[in-house]
Amino acid sequence: MAKILITTVPFGDRNRFPLDLLEKANIEYLINPYKTKLTEDQLVKMVSDFDVIIAGTEPITEKVMTQATKLKLVSRVGIGLDGVDLMAARNRGIKVSYTPDAPAPAVAELALGMMLTLLRSVHISNFRMHQGKWQRIFGRRLTEITVGIIGMGRIGTHLLRCIKGFDTLQVLANDIMPNDELSREFKLKWVTKEHIYKDADIISLHLPLTPLTRNMIRREQLLSMKSDAMIINTSRGGIINERDLHDVMVAGHLSGAAIDVFEHEPYTGKLAEIERCLLTSHMGSMSIDCRTRMEIEATEEAIRFLAGKPLEGEVPQAEYDVQYQGIL
Amino acid sequence: MAKILITTVPFGDRNRFPLDLLEKANIEYLINPYKTKLTEDQLVKMVSDFDVIIAGTEPITEKVMTQATKLKLVSRVGIGLDGVDLMAARNRGIKVSYTPDAPAPAVAELALGMMLTLLRSVHISNFRMHQGKWQRIFGRRLTEITVGIIGMGRIGTHLLRCIKGFDTLQVLANDIMPNDELSREFKLKWVTKEHIYKDADIISLHLPLTPLTRNMIRREQLLSMKSDAMIINTSRGGIINERDLHDVMVAGHLSGAAIDVFEHEPYTGKLAEIERCLLTSHMGSMSIDCRTRMEIEATEEAIRFLAGKPLEGEVPQAEYDVQYQGIL
Repeated sequence: MAKILITTVPFGDRNRFPLDLLEKANIEYLINPYKTKLTEDQLVKMVSDFDVIIAGTEPITEKVMTQATKLKLVSRVGIGLDGVDLMAARNRGIKVSYTPDAPAPAVAELALGMMLTLLRSVHISNFRMHQGKWQRIFGRRLTEITVGIIGMGRIGTHLLRCIKGFDTLQVLANDIMPNDELSREFKLKWVTKEHIYKDADIISLHLPLTPLTRNMIRREQLLSMKSDAMIINTSRGGIINERDLHDVMVAGHLSGAAIDVFEHEPYTGKLAEIERCLLTSHMGSMSIDCRTRMEIEATEEAIRFLAGKPLEGEVPQAEYDVQYQGIL
Repeated sequence: MAKILITTVPFGDRNRFPLDLLEKANIEYLINPYKTKLTEDQLVKMVSDFDVIIAGTEPITEKVMTQATKLKLVSRVGIGLDGVDLMAARNRGIKVSYTPDAPAPAVAELALGMMLTLLRSVHISNFRMHQGKWQRIFGRRLTEITVGIIGMGRIGTHLLRCIKGFDTLQVLANDIMPNDELSREFKLKWVTKEHIYKDADIISLHLPLTPLTRNMIRREQLLSMKSDAMIINTSRGGIINERDLHDVMVAGHLSGAAIDVFEHEPYTGKLAEIERCLLTSHMGSMSIDCRTRMEIEATEEAIRFLAGKPLEGEVPQAEYDVQYQGIL
């Protein structure tokens, strides 16, 4: 009988349907008993017995796969593939699927909410009001500033759609493959990342974590931003160097940051000491509807696979290429 | 020589231009030396010598006007007229002007930011992350819920414009004068307030404070809302009964509230004890551009008046009518 390891948590928490699907298909499953993001070592000890992993962002490395002798499919709940060593999987004949469309609307809405919050210092005022301190803080409006979006894939594009109603908004966009159709539909200007660092008042990252994007924003890039600029990362930890971000902000640079993703999660680092740093616990895709859709899609993919049917969400070659950009 | 009392603070803080205008016109002015919202008693002691008040939200009552024997114009920085006794002013031949268009975009953006924040518990996660606690909280997306907007004037309409990009959004709208043009431009349904209380997942208030709206939302109305509903008030304190809101939330009703305006400001009340209550310090119009525009418009109106030129922002009869609805 086929066995599935569900590493991502929570799972089936707000909607039991994915678990019902597994039970109806008579598939045995184990949900990550640690209830937190697994380390490589924890995974190594757990994986030997499973045919499929329904995975989160934990490291499914060559070392893990070496122990996972029965593993034939990694079905990712979500979009980022930085946790999965795609080439190691391919070399062992392990298929990898994902659910790249499901999280986009939830992440885009979170990013927009963070923009409006940072611009008006809502997070700072809320802190102070809860301490009994009244202080009217000046802010800026989205329509009056220049927004920079780095990474114009599914999520960046959905963000554009959400802000369509803000008429006079200036958007500077960057992507490795600028899409002319997008610039016809929305008012935006394709520019370099360096141009965005220099000219944008608020920058939102919507990128995968790859060798090219890891540590992409360090001290040098942060300091090239306007002193009152703001930066938002709802994509992946590791793209902005956290220590550099902490250091420049403590020194007074940048008027705000909103960080949902961290190099090591759960995060317990020093950005929490900075009042103007808005922090959330990797909640980009955590809307009930998107999370449920992701879990169902990843579960259906696993069931299809175990029934010998064709995969529908198999990771395309482009994702393999991106993972090795800058290495090969 | 004409003398102007500027009661609203901050004033000329981020942009000195309104003060420059007064100085160029050779007008003597005094900026509220208390640097906080004036009480009726403080005003009574201050007003006797002034021809014009450039006013905030402080109470310009009959008692104040009785002492203000030289007063000929109240030029409001902003939109709400609940602080000014319009009939008492008219009876004394005191003109009242305001700047009703200037704050709308800033208030609407704040309200939208608060919606997205409440829906995803960003304020709660930020609190906990700053205490070193990691917890992934589920939320909802704006596109998946029903939004109720009570009050569809300048600000409510601007909010509709901001959320135009959220395609499948359901909007229930209420106004004393439903506007068919709006329901042709945007997808919305005109309904009663009671319908909104009952059916909306998130409710945003964009109303003046009048005898009809004071205490409009009490325990009864709050309890008629869904148990996981959310309410946002960026309009005026006093419309939601603060004690009732506190009590129902402490008892577990409503999944969130965002309150920017209070019956008594600066606010130091018990809503600050509730984690899921997002609180800000009357910052709706506090974007630099809107605040500057409001200050300039109110100052230019005062200068025009003192030069014997016609007023451009005089409060229309409809505002007098609204202030006495439910009384006469």
